[in-house]
Amino acid sequence: MASQQLLVAPPKGLRRPLVLPYQLLLGPGPSNLAPPMQVAGGQRMIGHMHTSMFQVMDEIKQGIQYAFQTQNALTLVVSGPAHCALETALCNLLEPGDAFLVGANGIWGQRAAEIGERLGARVHPMIKDPGSYYTLQDVEEGLNQYKPALLFLTHGESSTGVIQPLDSFGELCHRYKCLLLVDCVASLGGAPLYMDQQGIDVLYAGSQKVLNAPPGMSLISFSDRAKSKVYNRKTKPFSFFMDVKLLANIWGCDGQPRMYHHTVPVIGLLALRESLALLAEQGLERSWQRHHEVTQYLHRRLQELGLQLFVKDPAFRLPTVTTVVVPAGYRWRDVISYVMDHFSIEITGGLGPTVGKVLRIGLLGCNATRENVDRLADALREALQHCPQHQL
Amino acid sequence: MASQQLLVAPPKGLRRPLVLPYQLLLGPGPSNLAPPMQVAGGQRMIGHMHTSMFQVMDEIKQGIQYAFQTQNALTLVVSGPAHCALETALCNLLEPGDAFLVGANGIWGQRAAEIGERLGARVHPMIKDPGSYYTLQDVEEGLNQYKPALLFLTHGESSTGVIQPLDSFGELCHRYKCLLLVDCVASLGGAPLYMDQQGIDVLYAGSQKVLNAPPGMSLISFSDRAKSKVYNRKTKPFSFFMDVKLLANIWGCDGQPRMYHHTVPVIGLLALRESLALLAEQGLERSWQRHHEVTQYLHRRLQELGLQLFVKDPAFRLPTVTTVVVPAGYRWRDVISYVMDHFSIEITGGLGPTVGKVLRIGLLGCNATRENVDRLADALREALQHCPQHQL
Repeated sequence: MASQQLLVAPPKGLRRPLVLPYQLLLGPGPSNLAPPMQVAGGQRMIGHMHTSMFQVMDEIKQGIQYAFQTQNALTLVVSGPAHCALETALCNLLEPGDAFLVGANGIWGQRAAEIGERLGARVHPMIKDPGSYYTLQDVEEGLNQYKPALLFLTHGESSTGVIQPLDSFGELCHRYKCLLLVDCVASLGGAPLYMDQQGIDVLYAGSQKVLNAPPGMSLISFSDRAKSKVYNRKTKPFSFFMDVKLLANIWGCDGQPRMYHHTVPVIGLLALRESLALLAEQGLERSWQRHHEVTQYLHRRLQELGLQLFVKDPAFRLPTVTTVVVPAGYRWRDVISYVMDHFSIEITGGLGPTVGKVLRIGLLGCNATRENVDRLADALREALQHCPQHQL
Repeated sequence: MASQQLLVAPPKGLRRPLVLPYQLLLGPGPSNLAPPMQVAGGQRMIGHMHTSMFQVMDEIKQGIQYAFQTQNALTLVVSGPAHCALETALCNLLEPGDAFLVGANGIWGQRAAEIGERLGARVHPMIKDPGSYYTLQDVEEGLNQYKPALLFLTHGESSTGVIQPLDSFGELCHRYKCLLLVDCVASLGGAPLYMDQQGIDVLYAGSQKVLNAPPGMSLISFSDRAKSKVYNRKTKPFSFFMDVKLLANIWGCDGQPRMYHHTVPVIGLLALRESLALLAEQGLERSWQRHHEVTQYLHRRLQELGLQLFVKDPAFRLPTVTTVVVPAGYRWRDVISYVMDHFSIEITGGLGPTVGKVLRIGLLGCNATRENVDRLADALREALQHCPQHQL
C-alpha cells in the first residue's frame, strides 16, 4: 500500500483527551452558546444538497429576514466569519476604481478601508476619534466631495462601544446614488435595526454574538438596489467562493434549481437555525429591551465601582458591548487576567484604536442577565482590590 | 425602546422543532460524523483567543502535519470550506500576470482555472477527458511551453474517480522554477500522500471527507518555497480574510504574538481536533489500507451487479470515491432517489464534466466498512430491479 516511509510521527499532544475549561464569555464575542444551539452542534450530519437541508436553509433565510427586518429575497448565510461577509459585500459591490466612502471611527471601518484598497477601489476614510459617531452632515459632506458608489458604517462599533444612528442615512445615500453598507455584527438582536425602513442596502452580522451560535458563519442581505449593482457588474468579482450570484443560487434566492457551489457548514447551520428560532420566539423588541435594561444595569454597577465609561453620551452607548476606561494606575492586562484566573470570566482589552485605553464587556444574547452583571461586578471589585497599582 | 413598527413577522417555519432524517452518507462527501466528532460539536464555547484554544489550534497543526506528512511550519486551518482553501492558495501564490498551469481533467481543475482568471493570472488549462490523469511528460510539456509560476493538480479527482500519481512531480516543477499546488480534499487519509517527500508546495484538504468532521473548515500547508513566494509578493492579495501572512500569525506560525484577525470556528475546530486525533491513533497507513480494501470490495460487489466502473485502469481508481457508469437504460436520478427513498442512503450523480455519465459512491473514514458496502449493494440491486428502464 504505502510506497514510502512515514517521516512524521503521530503527535503526542493529540493523545491527550480534550478537556475544556468552563468560561463565562463576557467579552465582545464570541458569547456562550445557548443550550439549543449547543444541542444542535451535537446533531448528526445530513446531506448538504438534500431537501431536509434546503428546508433548514429556507427557514434560516426567513429567520434572517425577521432579524434584519427586511423582505429582501437576496438574503443568505456566508460560509465564513463576519470578516468574510464584509469581504463578500465589498468584492461584489465594488469594482476597481469605484469611490468608497468609509466611516472609520474604529477597527471595523479601518478594515473595510483596507479591504477596499486591496480590491482597487478609491477609498476615502472619514477618520474620527474612537468613541465618536457620524452625523448626517458628516456623511453628506463625504457624499458631496467624493461621489462614492458605496458608504460603509458600523452600527455596533464593538472596538469603541458606540452605536451609530441609522435613521435617514439610507435616504441620504440614495439621493447621491450611493449604496449603504452596514455592519451590525455586534448589535444585531441587541439594538433596534430596521433594514428596509432605514434604507440599508447591504447588512451583515455574525453568528457568535447576540445569536449565541457557534462562530464561523455570517448573515447577509442585499436590497434590490444592491442586487442590481451586483448583477450589472462589468467585471467578475475576484472571488469565486464569495461571488454573490453563485451564493444566491445555492441559497435558493434566484428561482433557479440549486447547483453545487461549495459544501455549506451543515452542523453550524443547524445551530444557527435554532438561534434564529429562539430570537423569533422571544421577539426582537423584547430582546432589544432586555439588552438595553441589562446593559444599563451594568453601567450603574460599573459606575458604583468608580469606573468610567469610555463613551460619554449615554445615548450613543452600544447596548451590547460596553467600553470602560482602563482605571488609572492599573494595567488592563492585570485586570482581565485576574477576572479570568479567579472567576473564569472573559472580558477583553481594547482593539485597534482602543488598545490600552479600554476594557470591553459584552452582554450578548443569553449572557445578558443581571446575574451575570452581578458576577462580573463582584469579580471586578476584587480585581481592583488585588491588582497592583502603578505610578504612571 | 423600538422607534418603529416591526414590519416583518416571526416566520412560522421556525416554530417547527428541528427533526433530522437519518442518512447514511455514501456520496463523495460530506460523510457522516464519527462519534467523537459529533460529541465535540456539542461542546461548550471557550474564548477564541485563550490559551486553551491556542493549545487546541497547536494540536490541530501537529495533526495536519502528520496527516499531510510534512514538517512545514506554515500549516493551518482556513475558516471556510475547501473552496476557500483553494482560493486562499491561489490568491496568495498568484500575482496578476503570473502564468498558471492547470491540470483540468475534472471539476476541481476547472474551478482552479476559473479562480486563476478572476485573479488576473494567465491561465493555461491542460484539458483532458474526465477519467484521465497527468503523466510527467504531460506536465513537462506544459512547463516548457508556458513557464508557469504555479501548477495545480488534483490528487483525488472526486468528480471523475481518478487518483493522480504524485511521485516526482514536485521535483519536475522545481526544475522549472514552478510551485506545485495539490488538492487532496477527497483523498486525504484514504490514499498514500507524502507532502514533503513528494515535493508538494501547497496542499489542502477539507474536514468533511475521510476526516468525518463537520464541513466548513479546511486544512492547508505551505512549503518554504511557497512561503517565500507569499512573503515576497509585490502586491497584497486581494483578500484580507484569506491573507496567509495574517492567518500565519493567528495560527502561531510566524513566531510573533498572536493578534486578532478573525474569530476562528471554535466548535468546528474542537471536532476537527478530535478527527485528527483519531487518525493519528489509527495510523495513516492503516487508514490507507482500510480504504483500499473496502473500496476494492465495493468494486467487486458493483461488478457482480453487472455495473461498470468509469475508470478503466484499476491502478488509477481513487480508493475513496468510486465512479460507476450510469447503467444502460436507467436514469441516474431514478437510481439515487430509489436508494435514498427506500434505504436512506445517499449516493450522488456526476459533477461538472461527469454529470449524467456516472453515479458516485464515497467510502470515507468511518463510513468505509464492508457492512456499508453490503447495505449499498443490496440497495442498488433492488434499485436496478425497480427503477424504470427506458429505450435510449
